[in-house]
Amino acid sequence: MKLSDGVEWGAHVCTLLAVLPPDAALPAARLAEYHSVPSAYLAKHLQALARAGVLETVKGPRGGYRLARPPAEITVLDIVEAIDGEEPAFRCTEIRRRGPSAVPAREYRLPCGIHRAFTRADGAWRRELELTTVASLLTGVLEEAPPVSLERAARWLGEAVRQ
Amino acid sequence: MKLSDGVEWGAHVCTLLAVLPPDAALPAARLAEYHSVPSAYLAKHLQALARAGVLETVKGPRGGYRLARPPAEITVLDIVEAIDGEEPAFRCTEIRRRGPSAVPAREYRLPCGIHRAFTRADGAWRRELELTTVASLLTGVLEEAPPVSLERAARWLGEAVRQ
Repeated sequence: MKLSDGVEWGAHVCTLLAVLPPDAALPAARLAEYHSVPSAYLAKHLQALARAGVLETVKGPRGGYRLARPPAEITVLDIVEAIDGEEPAFRCTEIRRRGPSAVPAREYRLPCGIHRAFTRADGAWRRELELTTVASLLTGVLEEAPPVSLERAARWLGEAVRQ
Repeated sequence: MKLSDGVEWGAHVCTLLAVLPPDAALPAARLAEYHSVPSAYLAKHLQALARAGVLETVKGPRGGYRLARPPAEITVLDIVEAIDGEEPAFRCTEIRRRGPSAVPAREYRLPCGIHRAFTRADGAWRRELELTTVASLLTGVLEEAPPVSLERAARWLGEAVRQ
């Protein structure tokens, strides 16, 4: 069981975009450069984030991507669901309805206990990811990142936004 | 993000093995027949469950697989970890250490906030799966399964164990 690499990339991209000045945007190529990830592959995930309403695109020569809503209103779960989809990790194939003990499907009145255990676990996972917003990720970076790294990021961002 | 099909199969197999009489065992082919799943592929998962100490193998003409410990001491998490491994779904590749803001690795004193959010979610997921044991799955089946299905299962099991 593995989340797409795009989930990590998307969370970092949203955290970076949370410090952009109002009306500024960054193109996919600059976001890929900042995170040192393959541009074409990142672009695919940025499009998924835009389709899900986490990012929005700005057209024109200084266009690109920016957050579609305030960072406090975007959760890590929003990013996961935009990139990896909303399907739970456990997919019940109803094997209890196969083999020698099978009876017609209508006779099984409840989802089986295995399915229910995974549904509870999936809910616990999603609830936890809903508690972290892009705003709180940004606060963490500003408080914890090495000062030199923050200076370098600010310099790069100043140049990238002016271009 | 998707769990292996083997996790569903493994949980059903353990629940079936929980009703075996003491000292009885069932070969992979009979377990595959009962659940109507491909025998060679199920065998791979049964071996993983045995390596993890969830199942044990009994040699000889009436040999096969049985639970390695009491059903109340086997959790759904044990089955997941035996079949899908213990690695969390989120794998941090430390992309914050790449690109124009990067500084030497030793300067980053804490795991980043994104990584920490996923670690908390992973913990919540595993804790939930630890709450369900094979014993409680079996209780659920005995209380909720269609009576005709239970009769058919008991008849099949009686014959399979006698062979």
